[in-house]
Amino acid sequence: MSDVRICVDAMGGDEPAEVVLAGIEAALEADRSLTVLVAGPEDVVVPFCESHERAESLVAPDVITMEDDPINAVMTKRKSSIVLGCRAVKKGAADGFFSAGSTGAVTAAGTAYVTPFKADRDGKKTAIRPCLTNALPNRRGGLTVMCDMGANPDVEPWDMVRFAQMGAAYASCVLGVDEPSVGLLSNGTEEHKGSVFTQSCYPLMAEHVPGFAGNCEGGDITSGSVDVVVCNGFDGNIALKSIEGAAKFMMDELKAGMTANLKGKVAALLMRDMLRALKHKLSGDAKGGAILLGLRGVVMIGHGATSAEAVKNGTLACAEAVRGGLVERVRESMGLEA
Amino acid sequence: MSDVRICVDAMGGDEPAEVVLAGIEAALEADRSLTVLVAGPEDVVVPFCESHERAESLVAPDVITMEDDPINAVMTKRKSSIVLGCRAVKKGAADGFFSAGSTGAVTAAGTAYVTPFKADRDGKKTAIRPCLTNALPNRRGGLTVMCDMGANPDVEPWDMVRFAQMGAAYASCVLGVDEPSVGLLSNGTEEHKGSVFTQSCYPLMAEHVPGFAGNCEGGDITSGSVDVVVCNGFDGNIALKSIEGAAKFMMDELKAGMTANLKGKVAALLMRDMLRALKHKLSGDAKGGAILLGLRGVVMIGHGATSAEAVKNGTLACAEAVRGGLVERVRESMGLEA
Repeated sequence: MSDVRICVDAMGGDEPAEVVLAGIEAALEADRSLTVLVAGPEDVVVPFCESHERAESLVAPDVITMEDDPINAVMTKRKSSIVLGCRAVKKGAADGFFSAGSTGAVTAAGTAYVTPFKADRDGKKTAIRPCLTNALPNRRGGLTVMCDMGANPDVEPWDMVRFAQMGAAYASCVLGVDEPSVGLLSNGTEEHKGSVFTQSCYPLMAEHVPGFAGNCEGGDITSGSVDVVVCNGFDGNIALKSIEGAAKFMMDELKAGMTANLKGKVAALLMRDMLRALKHKLSGDAKGGAILLGLRGVVMIGHGATSAEAVKNGTLACAEAVRGGLVERVRESMGLEA
Repeated sequence: MSDVRICVDAMGGDEPAEVVLAGIEAALEADRSLTVLVAGPEDVVVPFCESHERAESLVAPDVITMEDDPINAVMTKRKSSIVLGCRAVKKGAADGFFSAGSTGAVTAAGTAYVTPFKADRDGKKTAIRPCLTNALPNRRGGLTVMCDMGANPDVEPWDMVRFAQMGAAYASCVLGVDEPSVGLLSNGTEEHKGSVFTQSCYPLMAEHVPGFAGNCEGGDITSGSVDVVVCNGFDGNIALKSIEGAAKFMMDELKAGMTANLKGKVAALLMRDMLRALKHKLSGDAKGGAILLGLRGVVMIGHGATSAEAVKNGTLACAEAVRGGLVERVRESMGLEA
């Protein structure tokens, strides 16, 4: 019996479709109550679906590539897997959509077709900004939620309040954190620290965000001192890429030390499994992807440099988000009606 | 024979004055043409200077702590080591000032007493914003200059042009880079990426910054793909703290792996020297501190959690910046007259 139906983009990511299909196959094996709607060109998806139970094809002749201008591609390639996947969620033909394709295109299509919730702002019902959210491993052995990770480079203070509310809903619904604490990413922890922009966010967040813990710093993304770190998409991208870059730097240094002499080479043999586990932990493959919060459906985006395991985990995480009622929890966090 | 006289703040940093004095002693031993003006309370600096050649005391009874409000402290504690040190540079009694004290207080005192250069802006001679600059180790085995690292959370596009020009002058004068390349920190490398703010900086930088290489990402701070990364002080602080946090995370994970079982413990023994060297490389102690570019004198700020070695290296780096004519090179990079 199938309880959840997830649409997966067979054409997403830098890897060939076979890698994505292998990930879908693994997800179907791991979760026996899952049905997958596989979106992509006929010659890719039909043979796969004919040979797999609980796999149905959604033929999408157009392909949006990483090089396409996101908004333009979503407007012109109406029969792409990204557009048809989002439309399937909107129509109820799928409960969620997972793609390892262009973040910009999935965000644009999700916003256009799955559509964001609306909230009162200055007396008018206004669409809220969807916010790209993920969880990064921290030094306390847990995960820190970060939002926005790149969907909105320029936002207003009220957008930050929404990001905080939605990020807290994610922490509680997906990670199981009771009463999550929420930090505002700034250049110091003291209340007077910040830019003119974050200083205008602070009092609004203090009033409207349960668990607001004041300012936090870049180091708190990995320290685990707060459960949710809130920032605009510009700073979120900078922090995330800085962290990834620093991790690469450390790995390079370790590799150099491990090939420099015999002691290092022996150590490398002894630590092989551990370094592999660390690399895996950092790759993000274990979680499968980032989620666009604020939409009326579950839309997840995997790493472009994807792997079968990342697709499997992303598909399963998408199904779990549906089963956990994440979209409803996000809506409730902002006090909105259905 | 002494050619350079550097004022060092004996009261800077979280460590007791003895640590700073040990660092000064080491600097005097390492550089025989250096004279140090030691600023601090009489009972700290006078005995030290009496027992050391080329050490002269600058008695400063007031102490600015890390807890003081920076601007207020600089205005009220006129006889503090930070204020008197900056005034010594202004008066020519010292060629440069090194402090491991409060970044905010040294920036405020440097701006008030050493004073920034002035440049034409909208037809008026306007003081430029001093910019906190440092160099971080990158994956190519070199150093990447980053500015502003935290002095100015909110700036205008013209300030970013100045930061870029000054950062390039630092790269060429201090690091010896020929024709340094300069990246604008953004949320993607493509020209259309960025916030409204960075997009307004882009064309100005393209016109006025030699070696401008377009947008760069957080990962480029450690990748070594550009020589200088330019950002406002808010983003600089976030990127720097994110990198430091990620490095701590990696070190924690390694430590955990190395105590988990016998294999790990043996590997830890084999890699002890290498990990110590890596920690040292990341600590910033080797470079001694960040420099405030744009002032009419050399002002350097060390880590608050300082060590004797950091003070030694900061004092020596200060002397080298004086000998290399860094202040003049910075002035020339902006096309300003003396």
